Amino acid sequence: MNIPDYPHERTPGFNAATLDRKAEWRTDEQAREQALDSAVLVPVCRYRMPMRGDVLETLPARQFAERLDQAIWLGLWNQRSVYTLEVTDAEAAQWPELHFSDLRGAAMRLQPDDAAVMAYARAMIYWAKRHRYCGRCGKATRPTHAGHVLRCDACDLEHYPRSDPSMLVQVSDEQDRCLLGRQPGWPPGMWSVLAGFVEPGESIEDTVIREVWEEARIRVTGMRYFASQPWPFPASVLIGYHAVGDAETPQVEQDELEAADWFSREQIAEGLRSKSFFMPPPFTLSFRLIEAWYDHNAAQPLSALIGRR
Amino acid sequence: MNIPDYPHERTPGFNAATLDRKAEWRTDEQAREQALDSAVLVPVCRYRMPMRGDVLETLPARQFAERLDQAIWLGLWNQRSVYTLEVTDAEAAQWPELHFSDLRGAAMRLQPDDAAVMAYARAMIYWAKRHRYCGRCGKATRPTHAGHVLRCDACDLEHYPRSDPSMLVQVSDEQDRCLLGRQPGWPPGMWSVLAGFVEPGESIEDTVIREVWEEARIRVTGMRYFASQPWPFPASVLIGYHAVGDAETPQVEQDELEAADWFSREQIAEGLRSKSFFMPPPFTLSFRLIEAWYDHNAAQPLSALIGRR
Repeated sequence: MNIPDYPHERTPGFNAATLDRKAEWRTDEQAREQALDSAVLVPVCRYRMPMRGDVLETLPARQFAERLDQAIWLGLWNQRSVYTLEVTDAEAAQWPELHFSDLRGAAMRLQPDDAAVMAYARAMIYWAKRHRYCGRCGKATRPTHAGHVLRCDACDLEHYPRSDPSMLVQVSDEQDRCLLGRQPGWPPGMWSVLAGFVEPGESIEDTVIREVWEEARIRVTGMRYFASQPWPFPASVLIGYHAVGDAETPQVEQDELEAADWFSREQIAEGLRSKSFFMPPPFTLSFRLIEAWYDHNAAQPLSALIGRR
Repeated sequence: MNIPDYPHERTPGFNAATLDRKAEWRTDEQAREQALDSAVLVPVCRYRMPMRGDVLETLPARQFAERLDQAIWLGLWNQRSVYTLEVTDAEAAQWPELHFSDLRGAAMRLQPDDAAVMAYARAMIYWAKRHRYCGRCGKATRPTHAGHVLRCDACDLEHYPRSDPSMLVQVSDEQDRCLLGRQPGWPPGMWSVLAGFVEPGESIEDTVIREVWEEARIRVTGMRYFASQPWPFPASVLIGYHAVGDAETPQVEQDELEAADWFSREQIAEGLRSKSFFMPPPFTLSFRLIEAWYDHNAAQPLSALIGRR
């Protein structure tokens, strides 16, 4: 059926971990206990990540032996167990060898595997903080399955960590220009593809059609899947599509975007050269979507224009 | 970029609603009020749906005027506002003209638009029931945005209705056989594609690779996106892929599947004829994935073998 190889070069960031989630160990306390000597822990402080320079830095999990029931076991990475745990400002200050960094800001400089483990840790901690109480009955939950289930003993409900599906779409018109939008609050000159959350009862294809209409009053007439990316800011999985739209002038009527417009390759190249135009960095699916469109019919690849891959 | 037309014939069920979600009306009480005379309401009782024969049946929304702040406004359908509201057994018994049906059981017989509206209503009610209390602080939430936001005034957090992304994958081997699995509890002879929830920090492609390995010990070496489908049983959006896997014998080691095996087209055709084999019905993405693989290299389409489309 002409199925392409995967993984492939279009894979965006947060996506390449060699970590083995090894779900069967989540209920195997003995296996985790036996691996504890070499186990490491990623302390997370206000969603900031422990780093030394541009590298993920961990602490021995044994240091946290009394609190491992509050930690979340992430899996096996290079034969070592990896946990994550939320820590206080006071604790963070006790480890002068660690520098706590915002993951989004640091992501451009990270090794792919480090970025993937940090994204996983951040997403799990975000989920756990928002499920301390049962949404059905209001009583406190307790962690089980090594932190992967939050259980309500009062009403017998189990809460699982999942992600909010969101779509990204690079829309082209019949002149092969690219539709980009600007959100209020973005730095001047920054543009990106359109995006939106998938609603209940909606296929992702229907989300693409709905959001492009809501945000820019452009009708999508065809689409093709590109790739997906975990995006822990705070809890998304992004699903990217290329689409074609009708040749109307974009209209922005809602609060979500402050502007939307069609861009030719020449406009983007000229804007990048004069530094009047920029877009999300290369680890983002947004960039990869724009790049795939751009490089399809360009004299010079987009990565050469921005001076990096 | 050779983008195919969408919508296309492979669209599975729950997916074709002409309903306009019209998000701007969620905060426009006046607009909803003006449309109230012709508005209808879908009462939902224990997740069962109001039907007359095989058709979605609604009640005038005016009958529920005092409770519309507890109802969820779904959008505009054929120029009419549509609400949904959970009702009790006693209420359901008061409307003898309605028959309350399980949506999954009825889905095969429904018109696509009816099925799509019911799936949306079911998903919203499921979400609302599980977010009555704030997961961060445990206090009661209150509905706002016409039921599309559940707000916690105690800790100032807003909860949004979203869906759990789950992947489905039809895996082929080098002999172009199809990998199918059986879950414990399924009726004898029923097989389907493999499936699994997308975890935090994971791309959907990585979920495909992980789940096929966890469930059948087959390594995925390439994959291609097929289509997505809303699946409100209880709260998923299904994302379907075709994949190729290595030519090993499937091994089932976990509780999720009781069996997994490779099937040739001949085996499937013979099993369908002798009624020793069956699979999910045509409104499912699972069926559409198997059908797309089957029809790719078959003398007779799968729909002819099962006697329906």
